[in-house]
Amino acid sequence: MYRSHTCGELRMEHVGINVTLAGWVQRSRDLGGMTFTDLRDRYGITQLTFNMEVNADLCEQARKLGREFVIQAIGIVIERSSKNKNMLTGEIEINVTELKILNAAKLPPFTIEDETDGGDELRMQYRYLDLRRNPVQQKLIIRNKVALETRNYLDSQGFMDVETPVLIKSTPEGARDFVVPSRMNAGQFYALPQSPQTFKQLLMVSGFDKYYQIVKCFRDEDLRADRQPEFTQIDCEMAFVEQDDVLNTFEGLIKHLFKTVRGVEFEGAFPRITYAEAMEKYGSDKPDIRFGMEFVDLTKEAQGKEFAIFDSAEIVLGINASKCSEFTRKQIDELTDWVKRPQIGAKGMIYLRYNTDGTYKSSVDKFYSEADLKVWAEKANMQPGDLLLLLSGETNKTRKQLNELRLHLGNSLGLRQSDVFKPLWVLDFPLLEWDEENGRYHAMHHPFTSPKPEDLHLISTDPSKVRANAYDLAMNGVELGGGSIRIHDRTLQSQMFDLLGFTREEAQSQFGFLMNAFEYGAPPHGGLAFGLDRLVATMGGSESIRDYIAFPKNNSGRDTMIDAPSPLDDKQLKELGIKKA
Amino acid sequence: MYRSHTCGELRMEHVGINVTLAGWVQRSRDLGGMTFTDLRDRYGITQLTFNMEVNADLCEQARKLGREFVIQAIGIVIERSSKNKNMLTGEIEINVTELKILNAAKLPPFTIEDETDGGDELRMQYRYLDLRRNPVQQKLIIRNKVALETRNYLDSQGFMDVETPVLIKSTPEGARDFVVPSRMNAGQFYALPQSPQTFKQLLMVSGFDKYYQIVKCFRDEDLRADRQPEFTQIDCEMAFVEQDDVLNTFEGLIKHLFKTVRGVEFEGAFPRITYAEAMEKYGSDKPDIRFGMEFVDLTKEAQGKEFAIFDSAEIVLGINASKCSEFTRKQIDELTDWVKRPQIGAKGMIYLRYNTDGTYKSSVDKFYSEADLKVWAEKANMQPGDLLLLLSGETNKTRKQLNELRLHLGNSLGLRQSDVFKPLWVLDFPLLEWDEENGRYHAMHHPFTSPKPEDLHLISTDPSKVRANAYDLAMNGVELGGGSIRIHDRTLQSQMFDLLGFTREEAQSQFGFLMNAFEYGAPPHGGLAFGLDRLVATMGGSESIRDYIAFPKNNSGRDTMIDAPSPLDDKQLKELGIKKA
Repeated sequence: MYRSHTCGELRMEHVGINVTLAGWVQRSRDLGGMTFTDLRDRYGITQLTFNMEVNADLCEQARKLGREFVIQAIGIVIERSSKNKNMLTGEIEINVTELKILNAAKLPPFTIEDETDGGDELRMQYRYLDLRRNPVQQKLIIRNKVALETRNYLDSQGFMDVETPVLIKSTPEGARDFVVPSRMNAGQFYALPQSPQTFKQLLMVSGFDKYYQIVKCFRDEDLRADRQPEFTQIDCEMAFVEQDDVLNTFEGLIKHLFKTVRGVEFEGAFPRITYAEAMEKYGSDKPDIRFGMEFVDLTKEAQGKEFAIFDSAEIVLGINASKCSEFTRKQIDELTDWVKRPQIGAKGMIYLRYNTDGTYKSSVDKFYSEADLKVWAEKANMQPGDLLLLLSGETNKTRKQLNELRLHLGNSLGLRQSDVFKPLWVLDFPLLEWDEENGRYHAMHHPFTSPKPEDLHLISTDPSKVRANAYDLAMNGVELGGGSIRIHDRTLQSQMFDLLGFTREEAQSQFGFLMNAFEYGAPPHGGLAFGLDRLVATMGGSESIRDYIAFPKNNSGRDTMIDAPSPLDDKQLKELGIKKA
Repeated sequence: MYRSHTCGELRMEHVGINVTLAGWVQRSRDLGGMTFTDLRDRYGITQLTFNMEVNADLCEQARKLGREFVIQAIGIVIERSSKNKNMLTGEIEINVTELKILNAAKLPPFTIEDETDGGDELRMQYRYLDLRRNPVQQKLIIRNKVALETRNYLDSQGFMDVETPVLIKSTPEGARDFVVPSRMNAGQFYALPQSPQTFKQLLMVSGFDKYYQIVKCFRDEDLRADRQPEFTQIDCEMAFVEQDDVLNTFEGLIKHLFKTVRGVEFEGAFPRITYAEAMEKYGSDKPDIRFGMEFVDLTKEAQGKEFAIFDSAEIVLGINASKCSEFTRKQIDELTDWVKRPQIGAKGMIYLRYNTDGTYKSSVDKFYSEADLKVWAEKANMQPGDLLLLLSGETNKTRKQLNELRLHLGNSLGLRQSDVFKPLWVLDFPLLEWDEENGRYHAMHHPFTSPKPEDLHLISTDPSKVRANAYDLAMNGVELGGGSIRIHDRTLQSQMFDLLGFTREEAQSQFGFLMNAFEYGAPPHGGLAFGLDRLVATMGGSESIRDYIAFPKNNSGRDTMIDAPSPLDDKQLKELGIKKA
């Protein structure tokens, strides 16, 4: 071992002992007769001191140490004359008697400090240096802790970690697969799993009863910001359960994680809301309920007053921005411009000020009397000083737009605090969604999700009305995870594939193994998966997942540090039985 | 929840309470007035009873239950009249009052019993049924336990679990990579990692200090029995360490695992042997030291007596099979035939019996006097009743052949007991091995392994003599894992790539990121990786890893259950920018 102690553990009780430390030079300060060097490792920083009068040679050596040099220092722990209460090791320093450079370092391309001067691209290219920065290390330390606490909690609840294969079969349903040409089976391909879905269901058929895995999954999608082609799931499944059993179990897990990793305790059960209600109140299936500002439906109240925009709208929705009546004209114009951006797509925005003096002021004063506006204000539960913002149009679009506006206002009003955590179960998702482009239904969750028994009769008459036994856990506007009770009956599964437009042959060739398995004694089962990257980022109070991943890829799916992907030589391609198209 | 209790938890203390159980029908016995049904889940088996006199309908229903039906039964726990001491639930049974079939089952293609009538192929095709069998479940339960205990132990030692990427870059060094075409970067490919080697080294450069990961790795090799294209490693790395630190740390891990999972405690430190000595004594770099039978070098003693075979041999080696002097002529002929098989390749075998009456008998009596044979016997430390078996020829070949013979004898003499565990560190592996076919050196471990400083001077003059700071942990003739102290200096790493025949450009384009990283302050570091599949199989006393993997592939790399790999349609290939060659 190159050290007797780490750079984070020496205290007053160690004064007088001889120690060997090793680490990186954080900085050196040369004060003429004395040189002070901060030595850093994962565990902390310890100050090394060199005295010109005592050992001029050694002091000269210390002066030449550059930032990020890796050194080993031997010396005696002494009490500091001026203590630093902000450092765990701030009461002591090391009076160095021997110094050895283990490895020199070139000047890093950006500063290795909490606040760095390195841009994103540079930091990704030198990710191994970026990972030296304390804020990045802390994020990965949280991730490590969340993963281990997850395992120990689930183990204590009787769950078994079972590894499922990475080289599996491509299925055209859902997102695009990454594929792997097989050299030994020429012309054939493996696919990387988008999730271990079918395998975890087979484990239930096998009687494993409770399964979990923290597992890499892969999706070849066009990357949006903060999507990664490879991501990590906490993947779970249970047999002989109903929806409530699953929700209660994983509510327990989330509570355990927040308590042990963040010191946050949740009171009582997590609130639950149906998908329909979430869309009605928040226009989102993952509402941020850290703040109110619920949607108010003013369609009835706003129509019939000859304001053509409202009269022609399918829906008129408002949100009450509390204490915002004094927004300037400029602020309101900016919000209007914001909702009119193509990404949001609203045609315009109407406002109603409920002034502190009790009067009303609206952008549509000429269509609505004071009494009309009072009706709106009352329905929206406005207090003097509040500001009502209204959007209108086609129901789904308007809800989506108003959701964006609500979150935007939440941000700008400081209502989305990063250290407040508000979980919410969203239940009863629709089983299917209509795919305009291909003129057919898609499974909203996946084809293995069970319809609600009470909606089963609608499957042939009005499929879009069928609700599923499917649920998501949302927190702070983020979907942490989701799952469902699965189909465990061959006939129903087969019917589901019919509905999704599979021919019998397609269904059999792609998922025959699962449907066959259902014929040999499949128990009722269900489960859920959390996105670990997103869970950890949310727990860390961050919206970006990238720094919670040690070696992330950029928005083109590239790792710029190792320069992957990269071309293969023809010999390798030939061996694999493929060529470039 | 479909149950109030599992099938493994009811005891005498539960007598009189009403319970709901759910599980699989293991078997039903119809004794006229009574029907007994064994209900099974992961936790155990509980006996259900149905009484014709009490409820004829219910009893009729029970009689119709087939094997592997999934049922739910409600009833009262009662004390059994004839108790079964072999079952944890054997003191009670359930007097069933309600019965519900949750899912029927077709007759399984093989029996779901500890000893099944299903062949390998059938069991793999219906793996979800094979996984219901208790011996298979037990193996996966051990695996789960080993993984979790590994994590908790390493966490307690300050190791951090950091996930490294799966989509990385292909490097031609070593085994063949599996590759993944990139749709977004047309004509370019990711590779799946053969190990996270370079990433874990970068984590050391980043100051993570102690890293571990239980991680899937991939090798596209022609599969031998018991090799899998995807396998799992316990992958570890430490900074500021020397070889002894690594060995001691992971000896601690292995001791912890055997103690907690198997109840086996190892006394004292694991024995250590050099690679050179292992080859000399056992002809293997992973000797099974559960039994002795070490090689005895008789070259000097056997040569010069006009026995041409020995005289022309580079080496003459023997092993002393204790108490085997009474082997029949037939047994010895069989052993001779065994070593002459093409897989072993010996030209012949010489024996020397040291009879219990003190006389000697050898197949080469006519060349050697009794006194000559006595010299052999003494050198081989023979006792009356022992049998010496000799092979000769070129040194490396002879050692390999005699190793095979030694293990074969160990098996047939019952010296390789599956519940005895003998770990052995093998040290000082050669840095390089000569690749006859390509006329160049290969790294024996990998190109990042550090040469021993005292052998550095041989690098340019006699590379094959250079020993590495590389080590393996062997147990019972199996390599459980291995590792090395790594190079952390750019110049030495570059020199190493030269030696391996890389051009400067190749080295830079493939491993430039690592060599660059070494210039920004890389600490001395080293580590090791265990093969989890093999570790768990060894702990379970098995030589085959397949049943310790939930969904293994066959020797053609196929998953016959899901039928992967499989062809892709042209549209998918076109999107990926590739076509079949």
